Amino acid sequence: MRPSKRAADELRPVTLERAVSRYAEGSCLVSFGNTRVLCTASLEERGPPWLRGSGKGWITAEYAMLPRATHDRTRREINSGKPSGRTQEIQRLIGRSLRAVTNLPAMGERQITVDCDVIQADGGTRTAAITGAWVALYDCFAWMRTRSIISVDPLRDHVAAVSCGLYKNTPVLDLDYAEDSAAETDANFVLTGRGGIVEVQGTAEMEPFSEAQLLELLRLARAGTDRLVALQKEAIA
Amino acid sequence: MRPSKRAADELRPVTLERAVSRYAEGSCLVSFGNTRVLCTASLEERGPPWLRGSGKGWITAEYAMLPRATHDRTRREINSGKPSGRTQEIQRLIGRSLRAVTNLPAMGERQITVDCDVIQADGGTRTAAITGAWVALYDCFAWMRTRSIISVDPLRDHVAAVSCGLYKNTPVLDLDYAEDSAAETDANFVLTGRGGIVEVQGTAEMEPFSEAQLLELLRLARAGTDRLVALQKEAIA
Amino acid sequence: MRPSKRAADELRPVTLERAVSRYAEGSCLVSFGNTRVLCTASLEERGPPWLRGSGKGWITAEYAMLPRATHDRTRREINSGKPSGRTQEIQRLIGRSLRAVTNLPAMGERQITVDCDVIQADGGTRTAAITGAWVALYDCFAWMRTRSIISVDPLRDHVAAVSCGLYKNTPVLDLDYAEDSAAETDANFVLTGRGGIVEVQGTAEMEPFSEAQLLELLRLARAGTDRLVALQKEAIA
Amino acid sequence: MRPSKRAADELRPVTLERAVSRYAEGSCLVSFGNTRVLCTASLEERGPPWLRGSGKGWITAEYAMLPRATHDRTRREINSGKPSGRTQEIQRLIGRSLRAVTNLPAMGERQITVDCDVIQADGGTRTAAITGAWVALYDCFAWMRTRSIISVDPLRDHVAAVSCGLYKNTPVLDLDYAEDSAAETDANFVLTGRGGIVEVQGTAEMEPFSEAQLLELLRLARAGTDRLVALQKEAIA
Amino acid sequence: MRPSKRAADELRPVTLERAVSRYAEGSCLVSFGNTRVLCTASLEERGPPWLRGSGKGWITAEYAMLPRATHDRTRREINSGKPSGRTQEIQRLIGRSLRAVTNLPAMGERQITVDCDVIQADGGTRTAAITGAWVALYDCFAWMRTRSIISVDPLRDHVAAVSCGLYKNTPVLDLDYAEDSAAETDANFVLTGRGGIVEVQGTAEMEPFSEAQLLELLRLARAGTDRLVALQKEAIA
Amino acid sequence: MRPSKRAADELRPVTLERAVSRYAEGSCLVSFGNTRVLCTASLEERGPPWLRGSGKGWITAEYAMLPRATHDRTRREINSGKPSGRTQEIQRLIGRSLRAVTNLPAMGERQITVDCDVIQADGGTRTAAITGAWVALYDCFAWMRTRSIISVDPLRDHVAAVSCGLYKNTPVLDLDYAEDSAAETDANFVLTGRGGIVEVQGTAEMEPFSEAQLLELLRLARAGTDRLVALQKEAIA
Repeated sequence: MRPSKRAADELRPVTLERAVSRYAEGSCLVSFGNTRVLCTASLEERGPPWLRGSGKGWITAEYAMLPRATHDRTRREINSGKPSGRTQEIQRLIGRSLRAVTNLPAMGERQITVDCDVIQADGGTRTAAITGAWVALYDCFAWMRTRSIISVDPLRDHVAAVSCGLYKNTPVLDLDYAEDSAAETDANFVLTGRGGIVEVQGTAEMEPFSEAQLLELLRLARAGTDRLVALQKEAIA
Repeated sequence: MRPSKRAADELRPVTLERAVSRYAEGSCLVSFGNTRVLCTASLEERGPPWLRGSGKGWITAEYAMLPRATHDRTRREINSGKPSGRTQEIQRLIGRSLRAVTNLPAMGERQITVDCDVIQADGGTRTAAITGAWVALYDCFAWMRTRSIISVDPLRDHVAAVSCGLYKNTPVLDLDYAEDSAAETDANFVLTGRGGIVEVQGTAEMEPFSEAQLLELLRLARAGTDRLVALQKEAIA
Repeated sequence: MRPSKRAADELRPVTLERAVSRYAEGSCLVSFGNTRVLCTASLEERGPPWLRGSGKGWITAEYAMLPRATHDRTRREINSGKPSGRTQEIQRLIGRSLRAVTNLPAMGERQITVDCDVIQADGGTRTAAITGAWVALYDCFAWMRTRSIISVDPLRDHVAAVSCGLYKNTPVLDLDYAEDSAAETDANFVLTGRGGIVEVQGTAEMEPFSEAQLLELLRLARAGTDRLVALQKEAIA
Repeated sequence: MRPSKRAADELRPVTLERAVSRYAEGSCLVSFGNTRVLCTASLEERGPPWLRGSGKGWITAEYAMLPRATHDRTRREINSGKPSGRTQEIQRLIGRSLRAVTNLPAMGERQITVDCDVIQADGGTRTAAITGAWVALYDCFAWMRTRSIISVDPLRDHVAAVSCGLYKNTPVLDLDYAEDSAAETDANFVLTGRGGIVEVQGTAEMEPFSEAQLLELLRLARAGTDRLVALQKEAIA
Repeated sequence: MRPSKRAADELRPVTLERAVSRYAEGSCLVSFGNTRVLCTASLEERGPPWLRGSGKGWITAEYAMLPRATHDRTRREINSGKPSGRTQEIQRLIGRSLRAVTNLPAMGERQITVDCDVIQADGGTRTAAITGAWVALYDCFAWMRTRSIISVDPLRDHVAAVSCGLYKNTPVLDLDYAEDSAAETDANFVLTGRGGIVEVQGTAEMEPFSEAQLLELLRLARAGTDRLVALQKEAIA
Repeated sequence: MRPSKRAADELRPVTLERAVSRYAEGSCLVSFGNTRVLCTASLEERGPPWLRGSGKGWITAEYAMLPRATHDRTRREINSGKPSGRTQEIQRLIGRSLRAVTNLPAMGERQITVDCDVIQADGGTRTAAITGAWVALYDCFAWMRTRSIISVDPLRDHVAAVSCGLYKNTPVLDLDYAEDSAAETDANFVLTGRGGIVEVQGTAEMEPFSEAQLLELLRLARAGTDRLVALQKEAIA
């Protein structure tokens, strides 16, 4: 039995609330249980210099956590002059995941920055962020089409993410903070609407895991992201 | 006529939503119109070293803005290694305002950090932050009393803040962003429930202002903070 | 009775010594009692990029303290990578005060940087800095007129500043360090030669102050800046 | 056909040269073809404060590249104040990999820092680093046993790493720089001597990959790390 | 003929003004012509942690330049987070020079920080700083003896410094800025009252120099520092 | 007797291994006994902006130490945001030394960066670096001539460096770490193939030294650099 009483293959309650920001071209407040992430997509007509002449656009992501998103207050990263390695790793993962389902030339030479700010953290912030960021990005592209900035939707597919883990040697889906702390293996999967793998990151905390276990985790993840993609479809309907 | 169509002495719609954070000892989501600030109060049993042996507690504040709180996306301050001067000025103002109505020895040698994170910005973020921070602080002290960490409420009074300005030479209350940008003089007032002045900051953008004008602004502010204090009382009722 | 034995409305001895720097276009060593600030005005033909095409000039200020300006040695700020919040707050105040009495278009698209370096600190360094910076700026403009860089004096008025405070509940003028540490309320006023208010900043350290007290402080300040402006006139005569 | 002319399942020539540093407790210069990484293991009797009382040791890794390790000179990271996100990601990966095969309590409350400095880079620097770091760590533990600092070898297994990728849709082993730049999918595998998975990181550059492809990559990786472990055994024999 | 019209072996007018700071335990405003450096010596009862138990004291120096000490305004170093290499080189040189003539155990386990702030710069700021710093240090030790903090004077000798150079192939003494910019070789000598060499630093800008030239420069320097030591003796008489 | 058992005028075994880097235009692994420095020369067609229009080239150097180059592990400088003062001092010295024997206009408006990375440190790293950097630079110029980027060799002479010191009052050549730590006086000499002095830096650790001692050290150094220049000639033959 998991600490959260959920079945091994059960997601937490997931909500995707659109248009939560008055100013952003696209936005989504995503909840995976008590984890809440505010995702905003900001269109910048002037992208970075290296984009000029490339004939394509770019999507980048930034990730941060409010100090009291966590059980104990976390110090702001600002005083250290640079995002931590963990923060940078997460924001690169979010950016790669979104770009993998986007037709970058169809964006034109523009940049979209997706900010994922964790309002409350209870495990799985990066997977919630990717899932919500897709919705914010969708709405940003819709905003651009409405204004005839682009003529076709650059999105080629959905993308969603979920964590899995081995908890007391049993594969379980969508770990909350308590489960994540106790899991022997932690894996994040970023999958597309059509089931392709965009990213897989599996880490053994102490004991190595086997190929069979990796496959079980992948199967759980696929069921989870299928459900998340269905929720994205509902949200944008 | 103001851009916002409000009367000269009219506040924007103000809401004070309590207990919005699952983890913080006290929290309040405050709205002054489209300006929205999430205030959380975090109790830290171990305050800074200089507190030890002082026989009193301390309240400090941190302030930040989400990147897309603003009309155009603002770069995160993190890469510059330190909060900007404006950020530091605001967080010191919030801290001083809260300490001015708190009986610090009654807190014991503890520190409370009040985080004010601007979710959406439409002018008056520092005044909204002070007004909401008082509620978060109130709830943090209530949390402490419930757990018998302290026996009496250290709060000696309410504190609330509002901006005023000279807009087309007319004194107006609670400027939104459009009004603030166009005002000739901008002033922030931090006042207590009993009407005392904790802080007054008045700045002429171009033309100096007169003593008479300063007094008119102060009178408007007092009416505004009286209303804000009434809303604080409703919120904690 | 004040620690300094001065009457409540008595300034410290003030001197304004011009042309103390061999290289600066304008300079003034200002003393308010034991507080001594070296102010230099540096003309830069190439201002910041955002100035180009604006049709006006800009005045900015930098403020710093020598390590042994203070009773105990203060660590240099250099190792922290950025001026402290206090330093930034002061340098913005000095810059705003000077710009408020300057006809910026008359300067042409040039920048003047006024450096205020505190050689010795005994309270009131920011007010001394503003008062002395005006003289350095005046001489910088004179230097420019002599060389026909500009044809009319961009200065529209004098500007001077002084602190006031409630000391043992009595309003007193021009606080030195000992008085400032013990004052219940501390206020800085930046006033023009014609008596307009450029900036007012009043802060209650512990007990809020009243409107009547604010007005008494303002009256003291006005008498003080009238005297400082008279000294500026003497200095440039 | 691969650019390197190697068979799909062919490693580059691998060498593991021990005792290359006069001072380090353990050291290994590892080459994967033209990729050369100097690994040194440094024993520190005084570990970080949080280790005290934990009853176990810790292994941490640092990773850097000499400026001219690369085809074009790379700027030193020093001027940016913190290792880049990529650098931090790699050093955390190396540390986790080594800890996964170490009996940390058997080390005592000591820290070993493994420095992996890339002398020459031609793809696969992180996998070469992990493979060589294991040898440096082995020698560091041997040094400690010789001096009776520890009585049993804390190493529980070998660990080695190799990259795989989809190059022109074909799974290939141990990508050099040219192959890595052109690969559609890039995956790093960290496996133990007994075949367990410590870490798997697979990333689709453009097109998502399938479960079947992931498994093929894993099979290639296992053959590769089996060979690397055999070379480690030869090296320490 | 030198640009300064001085004879080859002629110092600029040198003044050493004592007790220029109200707060510092020792202070000296030194002028070498238009070069002016304010030196203050600050006693710190609590030295750095590594001093404890060493049975000796320490002298350290910090060096900085006011922004408008130079012909064109120099940016403050503060924004770069660390003193420049040149600044650090100079402050280490000043510290070493003072320590070389001090009986460190006679100071007790205390630290003296000598701040050398260049008010105006016309070449030779480091040599003026060393020469003036000795006087500030002397007065700091006198202050300590007066208060019976130490019983004997820790100073074992005078120390003074001067620059020399090859200007149009002629050895000249005490270069001002114009001469320094045009010199082919630049050398700084730090010598004691008894004529010993504490530091010699000679640098060929373009053409290497010969042993004979080095000796000529040294002879000029010795005549110069003999005169500077005589002025130090006058100053403290 | 020296700790190293060497004669007073005896260099450590010196080797100069060329072409050790696959990518650099010139490279040399230099050993002075156990001190080993990897020197690479990197041609950059685009030099710094200030080079444009100057009609000459520039040579700059960077210096760093691997963490375990030293007996005890040294922390990487990266976390401090800037090279230390010592590092900057050394890299400026290397750059100046190379430029002093180079005909900069003959390089064209290009920059060469010489990286000197200390693989193992046993005293004299800066002198070994200069001696090896000359070889790397020579090979970089040869590479450029082969490709007709330049037509004549910009090198005007050899340059080599060696340390000397007073050890138990006896002048000795080429100090290793143990000798350097115990020496009373430490001096570095940078001399050309024709015997000219490019740089001399002599420092008394405790007792000042005399002119006669300075000359003895210079004579030892000249014998040492004559030998080093002979080895450079052999290496490039």
